[in-house]
Amino acid sequence: MTTPAYDDDNVFAKILRGEIPSHKLYEDEATFAFMDIMPRGEGHCLVIPKKPSRNILDVAPESLAAVAATTQRLARAVVKAFSADGVTVQQFNEPAGGQVVFHLHVHVIPRFDGVALKPHTGQMEKPEVLAANAEKIRAALG
Amino acid sequence: MTTPAYDDDNVFAKILRGEIPSHKLYEDEATFAFMDIMPRGEGHCLVIPKKPSRNILDVAPESLAAVAATTQRLARAVVKAFSADGVTVQQFNEPAGGQVVFHLHVHVIPRFDGVALKPHTGQMEKPEVLAANAEKIRAALG
Repeated sequence: MTTPAYDDDNVFAKILRGEIPSHKLYEDEATFAFMDIMPRGEGHCLVIPKKPSRNILDVAPESLAAVAATTQRLARAVVKAFSADGVTVQQFNEPAGGQVVFHLHVHVIPRFDGVALKPHTGQMEKPEVLAANAEKIRAALG
Repeated sequence: MTTPAYDDDNVFAKILRGEIPSHKLYEDEATFAFMDIMPRGEGHCLVIPKKPSRNILDVAPESLAAVAATTQRLARAVVKAFSADGVTVQQFNEPAGGQVVFHLHVHVIPRFDGVALKPHTGQMEKPEVLAANAEKIRAALG
Protein backbone atom coordinates (compact mmCIF):
# COMPACT_ATOMS: atom_id res chain seq x y z
CA MET A 1 0.00 0.00 0.00
CA THR A 2 1.21 3.51 -0.87
CA THR A 3 -0.24 6.12 1.46
CA PRO A 4 -2.30 8.52 -0.69
CA ALA A 5 -1.33 12.21 -0.65
CA TYR A 6 -2.79 14.55 1.97
CA ASP A 7 -6.02 16.24 0.84
CA ASP A 8 -6.36 19.83 2.09
CA ASP A 9 -10.14 19.68 1.78
CA ASN A 10 -10.72 17.31 4.71
CA VAL A 11 -12.95 18.55 7.52
CA PHE A 12 -10.17 18.75 10.15
CA ALA A 13 -8.02 20.89 7.84
CA LYS A 14 -11.05 23.19 7.56
CA ILE A 15 -11.38 23.28 11.36
CA LEU A 16 -7.67 24.18 11.65
CA ARG A 17 -8.15 26.98 9.10
CA GLY A 18 -11.21 28.23 11.00
CA GLU A 19 -13.51 27.57 8.07
CA ILE A 20 -15.65 25.21 10.16
CA PRO A 21 -16.40 25.82 13.84
CA SER A 22 -15.39 23.34 16.54
CA HIS A 23 -15.68 23.00 20.29
CA LYS A 24 -12.04 23.78 20.98
CA LEU A 25 -10.43 22.28 24.07
CA TYR A 26 -6.72 22.94 23.76
CA GLU A 27 -4.15 24.30 21.38
CA ASP A 28 -0.38 24.59 21.33
CA GLU A 29 2.23 25.18 18.67
CA ALA A 30 1.93 21.71 17.16
CA THR A 31 -1.49 20.33 18.16
CA PHE A 32 -5.20 21.13 18.46
CA ALA A 33 -7.89 19.32 20.46
CA PHE A 34 -11.68 19.54 20.11
CA MET A 35 -14.89 17.63 20.74
CA ASP A 36 -15.90 14.77 18.44
CA ILE A 37 -19.35 15.75 17.18
CA MET A 38 -20.35 12.08 16.81
CA PRO A 39 -19.22 10.86 20.24
CA ARG A 40 -18.98 7.16 21.05
CA GLY A 41 -19.18 8.12 24.72
CA GLU A 42 -19.72 11.23 26.84
CA GLY A 43 -16.75 13.58 26.51
CA HIS A 44 -15.23 11.89 23.43
CA CYS A 45 -12.61 14.27 22.05
CA LEU A 46 -9.98 14.37 19.32
CA VAL A 47 -6.34 15.40 19.13
CA ILE A 48 -4.78 16.41 15.81
CA PRO A 49 -1.44 17.77 14.66
CA LYS A 50 -1.46 21.21 13.04
CA LYS A 51 0.93 20.09 10.30
CA PRO A 52 -0.82 18.32 7.46
CA SER A 53 -0.53 14.57 7.76
CA ARG A 54 -2.87 11.86 6.60
CA ASN A 55 -2.24 9.36 9.37
CA ILE A 56 0.45 7.52 11.32
CA LEU A 57 2.01 6.19 8.13
CA ASP A 58 3.12 9.61 6.88
CA VAL A 59 3.25 11.86 9.96
CA ALA A 60 6.54 13.54 10.90
CA PRO A 61 7.96 12.03 14.12
CA GLU A 62 8.00 15.41 15.94
CA SER A 63 4.35 15.96 15.02
CA LEU A 64 3.45 12.52 16.33
CA ALA A 65 5.37 13.12 19.58
CA ALA A 66 3.44 16.36 20.10
CA VAL A 67 0.15 14.56 19.45
CA ALA A 68 1.11 11.90 22.02
CA ALA A 69 1.83 14.58 24.64
CA THR A 70 -1.50 16.32 24.01
CA THR A 71 -3.28 12.97 24.06
CA GLN A 72 -1.93 12.33 27.55
CA ARG A 73 -2.99 15.81 28.64
CA LEU A 74 -6.53 15.21 27.33
CA ALA A 75 -6.73 11.69 28.81
CA ARG A 76 -5.95 13.07 32.25
CA ALA A 77 -8.36 15.97 31.77
CA VAL A 78 -11.34 13.83 30.74
CA VAL A 79 -10.83 11.51 33.71
CA LYS A 80 -10.90 14.54 35.98
CA ALA A 81 -13.74 16.31 34.15
CA PHE A 82 -16.14 13.37 34.15
CA SER A 83 -14.82 11.33 37.10
CA ALA A 84 -14.23 8.64 34.51
CA ASP A 85 -13.10 5.12 35.46
CA GLY A 86 -10.81 4.76 32.44
CA VAL A 87 -9.95 6.06 28.99
CA THR A 88 -9.91 4.40 25.59
CA VAL A 89 -7.47 5.79 23.02
CA GLN A 90 -7.89 4.85 19.37
CA GLN A 91 -6.18 5.94 16.18
CA PHE A 92 -7.31 4.66 12.81
CA ASN A 93 -5.30 4.53 9.59
CA GLU A 94 -6.77 4.22 6.10
CA PRO A 95 -10.36 3.04 5.47
CA ALA A 96 -9.51 -0.60 6.29
CA GLY A 97 -8.13 0.63 9.63
CA GLY A 98 -11.34 2.54 10.43
CA GLN A 99 -10.26 6.02 9.28
CA VAL A 100 -13.00 8.30 7.96
CA VAL A 101 -11.38 11.77 8.01
CA PHE A 102 -7.96 11.85 6.39
CA HIS A 103 -6.08 14.11 8.75
CA LEU A 104 -4.29 12.21 11.53
CA HIS A 105 -6.43 12.16 14.68
CA VAL A 106 -6.43 10.39 18.02
CA HIS A 107 -9.70 9.55 19.75
CA VAL A 108 -9.73 10.06 23.53
CA ILE A 109 -12.85 8.53 25.06
CA PRO A 110 -13.66 8.68 28.77
CA ARG A 111 -14.97 5.32 29.96
CA PHE A 112 -17.19 4.28 32.82
CA ASP A 113 -17.53 0.90 34.54
CA GLY A 114 -20.30 -1.09 32.85
CA VAL A 115 -20.84 1.36 29.97
CA ALA A 116 -19.96 0.06 26.49
CA LEU A 117 -18.78 2.31 23.67
CA LYS A 118 -21.67 3.46 21.51
CA PRO A 119 -21.44 2.25 17.91
CA HIS A 120 -20.25 4.78 15.33
CA THR A 121 -23.68 5.58 13.88
CA GLY A 122 -22.97 9.00 12.40
CA GLN A 123 -25.49 10.49 14.84
CA MET A 124 -24.53 14.08 15.76
CA GLU A 125 -24.58 15.11 19.42
CA LYS A 126 -26.59 18.24 20.37
CA PRO A 127 -24.38 21.36 20.23
CA GLU A 128 -25.38 22.35 23.77
CA VAL A 129 -24.25 18.98 25.12
CA LEU A 130 -20.91 19.28 23.29
CA ALA A 131 -20.49 22.85 24.57
CA ALA A 132 -21.18 21.81 28.18
CA ASN A 133 -18.76 18.87 27.98
CA ALA A 134 -16.11 21.05 26.33
CA GLU A 135 -16.45 23.52 29.19
CA LYS A 136 -15.89 20.73 31.73
CA ILE A 137 -12.78 19.48 29.91
CA ARG A 138 -11.33 22.98 29.53
CA ALA A 139 -11.86 23.53 33.27
CA ALA A 140 -10.07 20.24 34.01
CA LEU A 141 -7.18 21.24 31.73
CA GLY A 142 -6.76 24.20 34.06
CA MET B 1 -10.05 8.28 40.01
CA THR B 2 -6.55 7.87 41.42
CA THR B 3 -4.34 5.74 39.18
CA PRO B 4 -3.29 2.66 41.20
CA ALA B 5 0.44 2.09 41.69
CA TYR B 6 2.44 0.10 39.15
CA ASP B 7 2.55 -3.62 39.91
CA ASP B 8 5.89 -5.25 39.03
CA ASP B 9 4.25 -8.67 38.71
CA ASN B 10 2.34 -7.92 35.49
CA VAL B 11 3.08 -10.17 32.51
CA PHE B 12 4.73 -7.45 30.39
CA ALA B 13 7.14 -6.60 33.22
CA LYS B 14 8.02 -10.31 33.27
CA ILE B 15 8.59 -10.24 29.49
CA LEU B 16 10.88 -7.20 29.89
CA ARG B 17 12.82 -9.03 32.60
CA GLY B 18 13.11 -12.11 30.38
CA GLU B 19 11.16 -14.26 32.84
CA ILE B 20 8.53 -15.03 30.20
CA PRO B 21 9.39 -15.56 26.52
CA SER B 22 7.95 -13.38 23.77
CA HIS B 23 8.13 -13.11 20.01
CA LYS B 24 10.35 -10.04 19.99
CA LEU B 25 10.09 -7.64 17.06
CA TYR B 26 12.07 -4.56 18.02
CA GLU B 27 13.89 -3.01 20.90
CA ASP B 28 15.59 0.28 21.60
CA GLU B 29 16.71 2.15 24.69
CA ALA B 30 13.20 3.10 25.76
CA THR B 31 10.79 0.66 24.09
CA PHE B 32 10.15 -3.00 23.29
CA ALA B 33 7.79 -4.53 20.70
CA PHE B 34 6.50 -8.09 20.45
CA MET B 35 3.62 -10.19 19.13
CA ASP B 36 0.24 -10.19 20.91
CA ILE B 37 -0.37 -13.87 21.71
CA MET B 38 -4.14 -13.34 21.51
CA PRO B 39 -4.28 -11.47 18.20
CA ARG B 40 -7.42 -9.70 17.07
CA GLY B 41 -6.04 -9.87 13.53
CA GLU B 42 -3.08 -11.37 11.69
CA GLY B 43 0.14 -9.65 12.73
CA HIS B 44 -1.30 -7.93 15.82
CA CYS B 45 1.63 -6.62 17.85
CA LEU B 46 2.30 -4.56 20.96
CA VAL B 47 4.61 -1.68 21.83
CA ILE B 48 5.58 -1.02 25.45
CA PRO B 49 7.92 1.35 27.27
CA LYS B 50 10.78 -0.20 29.22
CA LYS B 51 10.24 2.13 32.17
CA PRO B 52 7.50 0.94 34.51
CA SER B 53 4.23 2.74 33.84
CA ARG B 54 0.70 1.57 34.32
CA ASN B 55 -0.89 3.44 31.42
CA ILE B 56 -1.23 6.83 29.74
CA LEU B 57 -2.35 8.44 32.99
CA ASP B 58 0.99 7.96 34.76
CA VAL B 59 3.57 7.49 31.99
CA ALA B 60 6.51 9.91 31.79
CA PRO B 61 6.20 12.14 28.69
CA GLU B 62 9.56 11.02 27.25
CA SER B 63 8.54 7.38 27.64
CA LEU B 64 5.27 8.09 25.84
CA ALA B 65 7.07 9.93 23.03
CA ALA B 66 9.37 6.93 22.56
CA VAL B 67 6.38 4.58 22.47
CA ALA B 68 4.73 6.79 19.83
CA ALA B 69 7.85 6.66 17.66
CA THR B 70 8.07 2.87 17.92
CA THR B 71 4.34 2.58 17.23
CA GLN B 72 4.83 4.45 13.94
CA ARG B 73 7.77 2.19 13.08
CA LEU B 74 5.67 -0.91 13.73
CA ALA B 75 2.62 0.47 11.89
CA ARG B 76 4.73 0.99 8.78
CA ALA B 77 6.36 -2.42 9.17
CA VAL B 78 3.11 -4.38 9.48
CA VAL B 79 1.67 -2.66 6.40
CA LYS B 80 4.76 -3.71 4.48
CA ALA B 81 5.00 -7.19 6.01
CA PHE B 82 1.40 -8.21 5.30
CA SER B 83 0.52 -5.86 2.40
CA ALA B 84 -2.12 -4.53 4.78
CA ASP B 85 -4.72 -1.99 3.66
CA GLY B 86 -4.66 -0.09 6.93
CA VAL B 87 -3.71 -0.18 10.60
CA THR B 88 -5.75 0.17 13.78
CA VAL B 89 -3.95 1.54 16.82
CA GLN B 90 -5.55 1.15 20.24
CA GLN B 91 -4.41 1.93 23.75
CA PHE B 92 -6.57 1.07 26.77
CA ASN B 93 -6.41 2.60 30.22
CA GLU B 94 -7.83 1.02 33.36
CA PRO B 95 -10.38 -1.83 33.29
CA ALA B 96 -13.22 0.50 32.25
CA GLY B 97 -11.05 1.62 29.32
CA GLY B 98 -10.41 -1.97 28.21
CA GLN B 99 -7.01 -2.53 29.88
CA VAL B 100 -6.20 -6.08 31.00
CA VAL B 101 -2.41 -5.98 31.56
CA PHE B 102 -1.29 -3.07 33.70
CA HIS B 103 1.88 -2.03 31.93
CA LEU B 104 1.27 0.65 29.29
CA HIS B 105 0.91 -0.92 25.85
CA VAL B 106 -0.17 0.13 22.38
CA HIS B 107 -1.90 -2.34 20.07
CA VAL B 108 -0.84 -2.17 16.42
CA ILE B 109 -3.19 -4.24 14.26
CA PRO B 110 -2.78 -4.63 10.50
CA ARG B 111 -6.15 -4.35 8.77
CA PHE B 112 -7.49 -5.64 5.48
CA ASP B 113 -10.41 -4.43 3.39
CA GLY B 114 -13.55 -6.32 4.39
CA VAL B 115 -11.99 -8.10 7.39
CA ALA B 116 -13.40 -7.15 10.81
CA LEU B 117 -11.33 -7.28 14.01
CA LYS B 118 -11.75 -10.59 15.79
CA PRO B 119 -13.34 -10.28 19.22
CA HIS B 120 -11.01 -10.47 22.20
CA THR B 121 -11.82 -14.06 23.17
CA GLY B 122 -8.67 -14.93 25.10
CA GLN B 123 -7.90 -17.58 22.46
CA MET B 124 -4.12 -18.05 22.10
CA GLU B 125 -2.61 -18.15 18.62
CA LYS B 126 -0.39 -21.12 17.69
CA PRO B 127 3.29 -20.38 18.50
CA GLU B 128 4.39 -21.30 14.97
CA VAL B 129 1.97 -18.78 13.47
CA LEU B 130 3.22 -16.07 15.83
CA ALA B 131 6.83 -16.97 15.02
CA ALA B 132 6.20 -16.81 11.27
CA ASN B 133 4.42 -13.45 11.54
CA ALA B 134 7.15 -12.08 13.80
CA GLU B 135 9.73 -13.08 11.19
CA LYS B 136 7.80 -11.17 8.50
CA ILE B 137 7.57 -8.06 10.65
CA ARG B 138 11.26 -8.17 11.62
CA ALA B 139 12.15 -8.48 7.92
CA ALA B 140 9.95 -5.46 7.13
CA LEU B 141 11.59 -3.46 9.93
CA GLY B 142 14.81 -3.98 8.03
